[in-house]
Amino acid sequence: MPGAGSIEAPGPVRTPQPFGERLAAAVAARESQIVLGIDPDPARLWRTAGRADQARPALAAALAAADDAARAAAGGVTPSPGAGAAVRFDAAAAVLAHCLALIDAAGPACVAIKPQLACFERLGFAGWLVLERACAHARDAGLLVLADGKRGDVPVTAAVYAQAFAGLGADAFTANPLLGRDALDPLVQGARSAGAGVFALVRTSNPGAADVLDLRLEDGSPLWEHLARMVADLGAGELADVGAVTGATAPEHLVRMRELMPRTPFLLPGVGAQGGDVADLAPAFAPGRAAGLVTASRSIANAGETSGTEPGPAARAEAERLRQTAWSLA
Amino acid sequence: MPGAGSIEAPGPVRTPQPFGERLAAAVAARESQIVLGIDPDPARLWRTAGRADQARPALAAALAAADDAARAAAGGVTPSPGAGAAVRFDAAAAVLAHCLALIDAAGPACVAIKPQLACFERLGFAGWLVLERACAHARDAGLLVLADGKRGDVPVTAAVYAQAFAGLGADAFTANPLLGRDALDPLVQGARSAGAGVFALVRTSNPGAADVLDLRLEDGSPLWEHLARMVADLGAGELADVGAVTGATAPEHLVRMRELMPRTPFLLPGVGAQGGDVADLAPAFAPGRAAGLVTASRSIANAGETSGTEPGPAARAEAERLRQTAWSLA
Repeated sequence: MPGAGSIEAPGPVRTPQPFGERLAAAVAARESQIVLGIDPDPARLWRTAGRADQARPALAAALAAADDAARAAAGGVTPSPGAGAAVRFDAAAAVLAHCLALIDAAGPACVAIKPQLACFERLGFAGWLVLERACAHARDAGLLVLADGKRGDVPVTAAVYAQAFAGLGADAFTANPLLGRDALDPLVQGARSAGAGVFALVRTSNPGAADVLDLRLEDGSPLWEHLARMVADLGAGELADVGAVTGATAPEHLVRMRELMPRTPFLLPGVGAQGGDVADLAPAFAPGRAAGLVTASRSIANAGETSGTEPGPAARAEAERLRQTAWSLA
Repeated sequence: MPGAGSIEAPGPVRTPQPFGERLAAAVAARESQIVLGIDPDPARLWRTAGRADQARPALAAALAAADDAARAAAGGVTPSPGAGAAVRFDAAAAVLAHCLALIDAAGPACVAIKPQLACFERLGFAGWLVLERACAHARDAGLLVLADGKRGDVPVTAAVYAQAFAGLGADAFTANPLLGRDALDPLVQGARSAGAGVFALVRTSNPGAADVLDLRLEDGSPLWEHLARMVADLGAGELADVGAVTGATAPEHLVRMRELMPRTPFLLPGVGAQGGDVADLAPAFAPGRAAGLVTASRSIANAGETSGTEPGPAARAEAERLRQTAWSLA
């Protein structure tokens, strides 16, 4: 229902459909709660050499043109190239081919992709180019894009990050709540104005999360419960447009999280390679299937290595297995 | 003293000079503790139109080549371009010319630049290209590069972020400690192996920092003191290679921070446009001038708007004023 509720906006201004509604519709239409994590490791790429070879000359041309641009902007001075720029640029061609093949193979069993921004940033500007193209490819395939950068900064900068994710065409992005409510507000407002969502960290899946997120506050409750209340308060909509990143390696917390955040979509990383089990996640799905998104990255991309078969069909089979398991829990 | 203390490393392996030593040497050599924040706003760029015009065709050629590469990697399919990609690409040429002119003008009064990554990411991959070239230009001018992205993620991803900053040639980068010690370790180890440093958030300068960072723990101390102890424990060296981001808008905290982090370099944002005053910062400099780095962004870049004069000389004068004020406090 795009535009619903926008009676106070005269003229051509159109209120985008809220993220919670878009997410619920996408999960229902695709019959999937699986989020395909895209964390390309240059050392473990699928063998898509033919396509990478075809992409490489054009990427090299882009780098050369960028050098020319930098020289012109500097008034003729030639800046030093970044350390290892050529190597990273070469790797970018292979990563791009890998990402597109992974989306083609596993995407049909998924509702969204979750590119891990670090894995693209390590390739420098060519990596951001690959990120943009992978996101565009996923959107063309009917998938949502959840950009995983865990950003957080003072309000003036947070507003700029929201612009960056709008430029990327992200349907949602992850955020770090350490800087407080006024630092989350510009991220939420920026996302909301584009019909996008924010997933804020509440309890992560790494062992060290106990060092800070589990700290007891004066009233005896852990810090993550305080963050959970902040997230619940920030979201709007029947299914809220502000979600929570809730590590699946601590399923005993999920019941309490659902109490504190009854309308909040949970992004559940840690399934597969990080040790979580889909069957432990049932409390996340209590308000409806779209309230529990299950992320898997390496377990899908590397399924062919595990089984000794072709990576594409193996990835599709593993994503489909996860899809059916999660779908059967709700 | 590069290589000092590396007697256990036989053969050609060379231990890089630790960041704390490099920072102290740079501050002494340049007689400056000023960090030039680079937060380019496309709406407030310096008038460097000539250089931007010269850079634009080459940037456009880079974009076209990138399109070709994406098509090849997709096996002939043309992905949709990102929303507003052409507009952002056009802005990137102007931002690049602005950044290089700002570094040329104010750099001589500074010891480092601190590019705000959000401001480059909002321009998409062309923005990362501009970021890389601006960092290279600063290094060529003898400035350190402190990349301000406030990254933080689970350990496997944190290690990738460390690689990304090494690829950027950053001398240090900012980090968010919410995910705990095991998530900071790969950032610190990755930086240390390259002779670089990490500045972790301890107490930020926004009002909302009170929402989380000032929360009282069971023992009555605020959360930021817990983070301060973690930062002090992580650092190595006479001047530590793990620093702290300590908002200058709360100078009453600086004495306590120095008690908790006696060897830690402080990165002090919030001077100028955010309301801080350099003269309040004396406790930061107690262990030595390099232990207190003073960041200013908009107050330098926009000094010409304030005074109605040319932006370059006005920026240089403001940076020099800050340099002298800070230098006189130690």
